[in-house]
Amino acid sequence: MAEKGDSTRARILDEAMRIASRDGLEGLSIGALAAALPMSKSGLFAHFGSKSALQVATLEHAALTVRERAAPGARLAPGPERLRFMLRTIMAWIDDPGLPGGCPITGACVEFDDREGPVRETLLRLQRDNQRKAAESFAGFAHPSQDPDQLAFEFRAITLAYHHASRLLREERAGDWARRALEALIERAGRPA
Amino acid sequence: MAEKGDSTRARILDEAMRIASRDGLEGLSIGALAAALPMSKSGLFAHFGSKSALQVATLEHAALTVRERAAPGARLAPGPERLRFMLRTIMAWIDDPGLPGGCPITGACVEFDDREGPVRETLLRLQRDNQRKAAESFAGFAHPSQDPDQLAFEFRAITLAYHHASRLLREERAGDWARRALEALIERAGRPA
Repeated sequence: MAEKGDSTRARILDEAMRIASRDGLEGLSIGALAAALPMSKSGLFAHFGSKSALQVATLEHAALTVRERAAPGARLAPGPERLRFMLRTIMAWIDDPGLPGGCPITGACVEFDDREGPVRETLLRLQRDNQRKAAESFAGFAHPSQDPDQLAFEFRAITLAYHHASRLLREERAGDWARRALEALIERAGRPA
Repeated sequence: MAEKGDSTRARILDEAMRIASRDGLEGLSIGALAAALPMSKSGLFAHFGSKSALQVATLEHAALTVRERAAPGARLAPGPERLRFMLRTIMAWIDDPGLPGGCPITGACVEFDDREGPVRETLLRLQRDNQRKAAESFAGFAHPSQDPDQLAFEFRAITLAYHHASRLLREERAGDWARRALEALIERAGRPA
Protein backbone atom coordinates (compact mmCIF):
# COMPACT_ATOMS: atom_id res chain seq x y z
CA MET A 1 0.00 0.00 0.00
CA ALA A 2 2.77 2.37 0.96
CA GLU A 3 4.46 1.54 -2.33
CA LYS A 4 1.36 2.32 -4.35
CA GLY A 5 1.02 5.66 -2.52
CA ASP A 6 4.68 6.42 -3.21
CA SER A 7 4.43 5.68 -6.91
CA THR A 8 1.25 7.78 -7.25
CA ARG A 9 3.05 10.62 -5.52
CA ALA A 10 6.09 10.20 -7.80
CA ARG A 11 3.84 10.31 -10.90
CA ILE A 12 2.13 13.45 -9.63
CA LEU A 13 5.47 15.10 -8.91
CA ASP A 14 6.90 14.13 -12.32
CA GLU A 15 4.02 16.07 -13.89
CA ALA A 16 4.54 18.95 -11.43
CA MET A 17 8.22 19.12 -12.51
CA ARG A 18 7.19 19.39 -16.15
CA ILE A 19 4.78 22.23 -15.38
CA ALA A 20 7.39 24.05 -13.25
CA SER A 21 9.96 23.60 -16.03
CA ARG A 22 7.63 25.08 -18.62
CA ASP A 23 5.78 27.79 -16.66
CA GLY A 24 8.13 28.49 -13.75
CA LEU A 25 7.56 27.30 -10.20
CA GLU A 26 5.13 30.19 -9.62
CA GLY A 27 3.07 28.87 -12.55
CA LEU A 28 2.70 25.55 -10.74
CA SER A 29 -0.57 25.59 -8.80
CA ILE A 30 -2.81 22.80 -7.56
CA GLY A 31 -5.35 23.87 -10.20
CA ALA A 32 -2.79 23.68 -13.04
CA LEU A 33 -1.65 20.27 -11.83
CA ALA A 34 -5.23 18.96 -11.57
CA ALA A 35 -5.85 20.09 -15.16
CA ALA A 36 -2.86 18.00 -16.35
CA LEU A 37 -3.67 14.84 -14.37
CA PRO A 38 -6.69 12.56 -13.98
CA MET A 39 -7.08 13.86 -10.43
CA SER A 40 -9.33 16.39 -8.71
CA LYS A 41 -8.12 19.55 -7.03
CA SER A 42 -9.46 18.23 -3.71
CA GLY A 43 -7.48 14.98 -4.17
CA LEU A 44 -4.31 16.98 -4.78
CA PHE A 45 -5.04 19.23 -1.80
CA ALA A 46 -5.25 16.07 0.32
CA HIS A 47 -1.75 15.14 -0.95
CA PHE A 48 -0.04 18.51 -0.54
CA GLY A 49 -2.14 20.89 1.53
CA SER A 50 -1.05 24.14 -0.17
CA LYS A 51 0.55 25.59 -3.29
CA SER A 52 3.71 26.36 -1.35
CA ALA A 53 3.95 22.78 -0.01
CA LEU A 54 3.45 21.50 -3.58
CA GLN A 55 6.26 23.79 -4.80
CA VAL A 56 8.61 22.54 -2.06
CA ALA A 57 7.72 18.88 -2.79
CA THR A 58 8.37 19.46 -6.51
CA LEU A 59 11.81 20.94 -5.87
CA GLU A 60 12.71 18.06 -3.56
CA HIS A 61 11.48 15.57 -6.14
CA ALA A 62 13.61 17.23 -8.83
CA ALA A 63 16.67 17.19 -6.55
CA LEU A 64 16.07 13.51 -5.73
CA THR A 65 15.76 12.67 -9.44
CA VAL A 66 19.12 14.32 -10.21
CA ARG A 67 20.70 12.68 -7.17
CA GLU A 68 19.56 9.22 -8.36
CA ARG A 69 21.04 9.85 -11.80
CA ALA A 70 24.27 11.10 -10.22
CA ALA A 71 24.52 8.12 -7.83
CA PRO A 72 27.12 6.12 -9.87
CA GLY A 73 29.36 9.19 -9.79
CA ALA A 74 28.89 9.70 -6.06
CA ARG A 75 30.42 6.23 -5.54
CA LEU A 76 33.65 7.33 -7.24
CA ALA A 77 36.47 8.72 -5.11
CA PRO A 78 36.47 12.53 -4.83
CA GLY A 79 38.42 13.68 -7.87
CA PRO A 80 38.34 14.60 -11.55
CA GLU A 81 36.34 11.52 -12.67
CA ARG A 82 33.61 12.27 -10.16
CA LEU A 83 33.44 15.89 -11.32
CA ARG A 84 33.23 14.81 -14.97
CA PHE A 85 30.39 12.44 -14.10
CA MET A 86 28.60 15.22 -12.18
CA LEU A 87 28.88 17.58 -15.14
CA ARG A 88 27.65 14.95 -17.63
CA THR A 89 24.67 14.16 -15.39
CA ILE A 90 23.74 17.83 -14.95
CA MET A 91 24.07 18.53 -18.70
CA ALA A 92 21.84 15.55 -19.57
CA TRP A 93 19.32 16.75 -16.97
CA ILE A 94 19.30 20.29 -18.39
CA ASP A 95 18.67 18.84 -21.87
CA ASP A 96 16.12 16.25 -20.69
CA PRO A 97 13.28 16.27 -23.24
CA GLY A 98 10.88 15.61 -20.34
CA LEU A 99 11.68 19.12 -19.05
CA PRO A 100 10.24 21.43 -21.68
CA GLY A 101 11.73 24.61 -20.16
CA GLY A 102 14.99 23.39 -18.62
CA CYS A 103 15.87 22.58 -15.03
CA PRO A 104 13.03 23.60 -12.70
CA ILE A 105 15.49 24.18 -9.84
CA THR A 106 17.61 26.62 -11.88
CA GLY A 107 14.44 28.44 -12.89
CA ALA A 108 13.23 28.63 -9.29
CA CYS A 109 16.62 29.94 -8.12
CA VAL A 110 16.11 33.06 -10.22
CA GLU A 111 12.35 33.29 -9.54
CA PHE A 112 12.56 32.94 -5.76
CA ASP A 113 15.99 34.37 -4.92
CA ASP A 114 14.41 37.39 -3.22
CA ARG A 115 11.12 35.93 -1.98
CA GLU A 116 11.32 34.86 1.64
CA GLY A 117 9.50 31.67 2.60
CA PRO A 118 9.64 27.88 2.48
CA VAL A 119 10.46 27.72 -1.26
CA ARG A 120 13.52 29.93 -0.86
CA GLU A 121 14.60 27.97 2.25
CA THR A 122 14.37 24.71 0.28
CA LEU A 123 16.40 26.12 -2.61
CA LEU A 124 19.03 27.38 -0.22
CA ARG A 125 19.37 23.98 1.43
CA LEU A 126 19.56 22.13 -1.91
CA GLN A 127 22.05 24.55 -3.43
CA ARG A 128 24.30 24.61 -0.36
CA ASP A 129 24.28 20.83 -0.43
CA ASN A 130 25.43 20.90 -4.08
CA GLN A 131 28.11 23.47 -3.27
CA ARG A 132 29.39 21.22 -0.46
CA LYS A 133 29.45 18.12 -2.71
CA ALA A 134 31.38 19.90 -5.45
CA ALA A 135 33.84 21.32 -2.88
CA GLU A 136 34.42 17.79 -1.47
CA SER A 137 35.18 16.48 -4.95
CA PHE A 138 37.79 19.20 -5.49
CA ALA A 139 39.22 18.79 -1.97
CA GLY A 140 39.99 15.15 -2.85
CA PHE A 141 42.77 16.11 -5.28
CA ALA A 142 43.33 19.89 -5.30
CA HIS A 143 46.63 21.47 -4.30
CA PRO A 144 46.48 22.35 -0.56
CA SER A 145 46.76 26.07 -1.40
CA GLN A 146 43.53 25.93 -3.45
CA ASP A 147 40.18 26.88 -1.85
CA PRO A 148 37.61 24.11 -2.55
CA ASP A 149 34.74 26.62 -2.15
CA GLN A 150 36.27 28.81 -4.85
CA LEU A 151 36.53 25.82 -7.19
CA ALA A 152 32.96 24.72 -6.35
CA PHE A 153 31.72 28.24 -7.22
CA GLU A 154 33.40 27.90 -10.61
CA PHE A 155 31.94 24.42 -11.12
CA ARG A 156 28.46 25.83 -10.57
CA ALA A 157 29.33 28.67 -12.95
CA ILE A 158 29.96 26.13 -15.72
CA THR A 159 26.59 24.42 -15.19
CA LEU A 160 24.68 27.74 -15.13
CA ALA A 161 26.42 28.90 -18.31
CA TYR A 162 25.66 25.56 -19.96
CA HIS A 163 21.96 25.98 -19.14
CA HIS A 164 22.08 29.47 -20.67
CA ALA A 165 24.02 28.46 -23.80
CA SER A 166 22.06 25.29 -24.43
CA ARG A 167 18.48 26.37 -23.66
CA LEU A 168 18.46 30.08 -24.52
CA LEU A 169 21.17 30.39 -27.18
CA ARG A 170 20.65 26.82 -28.52
CA GLU A 171 24.36 26.93 -29.13
CA GLU A 172 25.83 23.77 -30.65
CA ARG A 173 29.19 24.39 -29.00
CA ALA A 174 27.68 24.60 -25.48
CA GLY A 175 28.71 21.05 -24.52
CA ASP A 176 32.28 21.51 -25.79
CA TRP A 177 32.57 24.83 -23.96
CA ALA A 178 31.38 23.32 -20.68
CA ARG A 179 33.65 20.25 -20.91
CA ARG A 180 36.70 22.36 -21.79
CA ALA A 181 35.96 24.78 -18.95
CA LEU A 182 35.85 21.85 -16.51
CA GLU A 183 39.13 20.39 -17.80
CA ALA A 184 40.80 23.79 -17.33
CA LEU A 185 39.38 24.03 -13.81
CA ILE A 186 40.58 20.51 -12.92
CA GLU A 187 44.03 21.28 -14.27
CA ARG A 188 44.18 24.53 -12.27
CA ALA A 189 42.95 22.83 -9.09
CA GLY A 190 46.03 20.60 -9.14
CA ARG A 191 48.44 23.56 -9.24
CA PRO A 192 49.33 25.98 -6.42
CA ALA A 193 46.80 28.83 -6.09
CA MET B 1 8.72 67.98 -26.51
CA ALA B 2 10.56 64.90 -27.72
CA GLU B 3 12.76 65.17 -24.66
CA LYS B 4 9.79 65.30 -22.31
CA GLY B 5 8.34 62.24 -24.05
CA ASP B 6 11.67 60.43 -23.76
CA SER B 7 12.03 61.14 -20.06
CA THR B 8 8.45 60.04 -19.37
CA ARG B 9 9.16 56.83 -21.24
CA ALA B 10 12.40 56.30 -19.29
CA ARG B 11 10.56 56.80 -15.97
CA ILE B 12 7.88 54.31 -17.02
CA LEU B 13 10.50 51.77 -18.05
CA ASP B 14 12.49 52.23 -14.82
CA GLU B 15 9.35 51.20 -12.93
CA ALA B 16 8.74 48.34 -15.40
CA MET B 17 12.31 47.07 -14.72
CA ARG B 18 11.64 47.07 -10.99
CA ILE B 19 8.43 45.07 -11.44
CA ALA B 20 10.15 42.58 -13.79
CA SER B 21 13.02 42.21 -11.32
CA ARG B 22 10.65 41.44 -8.46
CA ASP B 23 7.89 39.42 -10.18
CA GLY B 24 9.60 38.11 -13.31
CA LEU B 25 9.03 39.46 -16.80
CA GLU B 26 5.82 37.43 -17.07
CA GLY B 27 4.55 39.26 -13.96
CA LEU B 28 5.00 42.56 -15.79
CA SER B 29 1.67 43.53 -17.36
CA ILE B 30 0.24 46.85 -18.41
CA GLY B 31 -2.22 46.54 -15.50
CA ALA B 32 0.57 45.92 -12.94
CA LEU B 33 2.53 48.87 -14.33
CA ALA B 34 -0.52 51.18 -14.25
CA ALA B 35 -1.06 50.22 -10.59
CA ALA B 36 2.50 51.32 -9.75
CA LEU B 37 2.46 54.61 -11.69
CA PRO B 38 0.22 57.69 -11.77
CA MET B 39 -0.90 56.61 -15.26
CA SER B 40 -3.96 54.90 -16.68
CA LYS B 41 -3.91 51.55 -18.44
CA SER B 42 -5.14 53.27 -21.60
CA GLY B 43 -2.27 55.77 -21.41
CA LEU B 44 0.23 52.91 -21.11
CA PHE B 45 -1.43 51.03 -23.98
CA ALA B 46 -0.91 54.14 -26.09
CA HIS B 47 2.82 53.99 -25.23
CA PHE B 48 3.40 50.25 -25.75
CA GLY B 49 0.47 48.63 -27.53
CA SER B 50 0.73 45.19 -25.91
CA LYS B 51 2.16 43.28 -22.97
CA SER B 52 4.73 41.65 -25.20
CA ALA B 53 5.88 45.03 -26.61
CA LEU B 54 6.15 46.34 -23.04
CA GLN B 55 8.27 43.30 -22.09
CA VAL B 56 10.58 43.85 -25.08
CA ALA B 57 10.89 47.60 -24.32
CA THR B 58 11.72 46.79 -20.68
CA LEU B 59 14.50 44.37 -21.65
CA GLU B 60 15.95 46.90 -24.08
CA HIS B 61 15.78 49.61 -21.43
CA ALA B 62 17.60 47.34 -18.95
CA ALA B 63 20.28 46.52 -21.54
CA LEU B 64 20.71 50.23 -22.35
CA THR B 65 21.06 51.05 -18.63
CA VAL B 66 23.85 48.47 -18.20
CA ARG B 67 25.51 49.64 -21.43
CA GLU B 68 25.57 53.26 -20.17
CA ARG B 69 27.16 52.17 -16.90
CA ALA B 70 29.69 50.06 -18.81
CA ALA B 71 30.56 52.87 -21.24
CA PRO B 72 33.82 53.99 -19.53
CA GLY B 73 35.06 50.39 -19.80
CA ALA B 74 34.07 50.11 -23.44
CA ARG B 75 36.48 52.98 -24.17
CA LEU B 76 39.41 50.94 -22.81
CA ALA B 77 41.47 48.81 -25.21
CA PRO B 78 40.30 45.18 -25.43
CA GLY B 79 42.13 43.45 -22.59
CA PRO B 80 42.17 42.54 -18.89
CA GLU B 81 41.30 46.05 -17.63
CA ARG B 82 38.22 46.17 -19.82
CA LEU B 83 37.11 42.74 -18.59
CA ARG B 84 37.61 43.78 -14.95
CA PHE B 85 35.53 46.91 -15.58
CA MET B 86 32.80 44.81 -17.24
CA LEU B 87 32.68 42.41 -14.29
CA ARG B 88 32.55 45.24 -11.72
CA THR B 89 29.73 46.92 -13.66
CA ILE B 90 27.72 43.69 -13.93
CA MET B 91 28.22 42.86 -10.24
CA ALA B 92 27.07 46.34 -9.18
CA TRP B 93 24.04 45.99 -11.48
CA ILE B 94 23.13 42.59 -10.00
CA ASP B 95 23.32 44.11 -6.49
CA ASP B 96 21.54 47.35 -7.44
CA PRO B 97 19.09 48.14 -4.61
CA GLY B 98 16.72 49.52 -7.26
CA LEU B 99 16.29 45.96 -8.57
CA PRO B 100 14.52 44.13 -5.76
CA GLY B 101 14.84 40.67 -7.38
CA GLY B 102 18.14 40.91 -9.27
CA CYS B 103 18.84 41.47 -12.95
CA PRO B 104 15.59 41.36 -14.96
CA ILE B 105 17.46 40.13 -18.05
CA THR B 106 18.98 37.15 -16.21
CA GLY B 107 15.54 36.32 -14.84
CA ALA B 108 13.95 36.55 -18.28
CA CYS B 109 16.67 34.31 -19.79
CA VAL B 110 15.48 31.44 -17.60
CA GLU B 111 11.77 32.34 -17.87
CA PHE B 112 11.69 32.68 -21.65
CA ASP B 113 14.43 30.31 -22.85
CA ASP B 114 11.86 27.94 -24.30
CA ARG B 115 9.02 30.31 -25.21
CA GLU B 116 9.14 31.33 -28.85
CA GLY B 117 8.26 34.93 -29.67
CA PRO B 118 9.52 38.52 -29.62
CA VAL B 119 10.74 38.37 -25.99
CA ARG B 120 12.94 35.36 -26.68
CA GLU B 121 14.23 36.97 -29.90
CA THR B 122 15.17 40.12 -27.98
CA LEU B 123 16.99 38.12 -25.30
CA LEU B 124 18.87 36.17 -27.95
CA ARG B 125 20.02 39.37 -29.66
CA LEU B 126 21.09 41.03 -26.39
CA GLN B 127 22.91 37.94 -25.10
CA ARG B 128 24.71 37.28 -28.40
CA ASP B 129 25.81 40.90 -28.38
CA ASN B 130 27.27 40.43 -24.88
CA GLN B 131 28.97 37.20 -25.92
CA ARG B 132 30.55 39.02 -28.87
CA LYS B 133 31.76 41.93 -26.70
CA ALA B 134 33.37 39.62 -24.15
CA ALA B 135 35.00 37.58 -26.94
CA GLU B 136 36.44 40.80 -28.46
CA SER B 137 37.93 41.78 -25.10
CA PHE B 138 39.66 38.39 -24.81
CA ALA B 139 40.76 38.42 -28.45
CA GLY B 140 42.66 41.64 -27.70
CA PHE B 141 45.28 39.88 -25.57
CA ALA B 142 44.70 36.11 -25.54
CA HIS B 143 47.26 33.64 -26.88
CA PRO B 144 46.47 32.89 -30.57
CA SER B 145 45.71 29.24 -29.70
CA GLN B 146 42.90 30.29 -27.33
CA ASP B 147 39.28 30.41 -28.55
CA PRO B 148 37.73 33.78 -27.62
CA ASP B 149 34.21 32.26 -27.68
CA GLN B 150 35.29 29.65 -25.12
CA LEU B 151 36.68 32.41 -22.88
CA ALA B 152 33.52 34.52 -23.34
CA PHE B 153 31.40 31.51 -22.30
CA GLU B 154 33.44 31.28 -19.12
CA PHE B 155 33.15 35.04 -18.52
CA ARG B 156 29.37 34.73 -18.67
CA ALA B 157 29.61 31.71 -16.35
CA ILE B 158 31.25 33.92 -13.71
CA THR B 159 28.50 36.55 -13.91
CA LEU B 160 25.70 33.95 -13.70
CA ALA B 161 27.34 32.27 -10.71
CA TYR B 162 27.79 35.66 -9.06
CA HIS B 163 24.05 36.36 -9.46
CA HIS B 164 23.30 32.97 -7.90
CA ALA B 165 25.77 33.30 -5.00
CA SER B 166 24.91 36.92 -4.22
CA ARG B 167 21.10 36.92 -4.59
CA LEU B 168 20.08 33.38 -3.67
CA LEU B 169 22.86 32.24 -1.32
CA ARG B 170 23.54 35.78 0.02
CA GLU B 171 27.11 34.58 0.24
CA GLU B 172 29.60 37.16 1.55
CA ARG B 173 32.43 35.60 -0.44
CA ALA B 174 30.56 35.90 -3.78
CA GLY B 175 32.50 39.00 -4.89
CA ASP B 176 35.88 37.49 -4.01
CA TRP B 177 35.00 34.26 -5.81
CA ALA B 178 33.96 36.10 -8.96
CA ARG B 179 37.05 38.37 -9.02
CA ARG B 180 39.41 35.43 -8.45
CA ALA B 181 37.69 33.39 -11.14
CA LEU B 182 38.19 36.27 -13.59
CA GLU B 183 41.88 36.65 -12.69
CA ALA B 184 42.42 32.92 -13.26
CA LEU B 185 40.62 33.17 -16.62
CA ILE B 186 42.70 36.20 -17.68
CA GLU B 187 45.89 34.40 -16.68
CA ARG B 188 44.86 31.29 -18.65
CA ALA B 189 43.88 33.35 -21.70
CA GLY B 190 47.46 34.56 -22.01
CA ARG B 191 48.90 31.02 -22.13
CA PRO B 192 48.74 28.49 -24.98
CA ALA B 193 45.46 26.51 -25.00
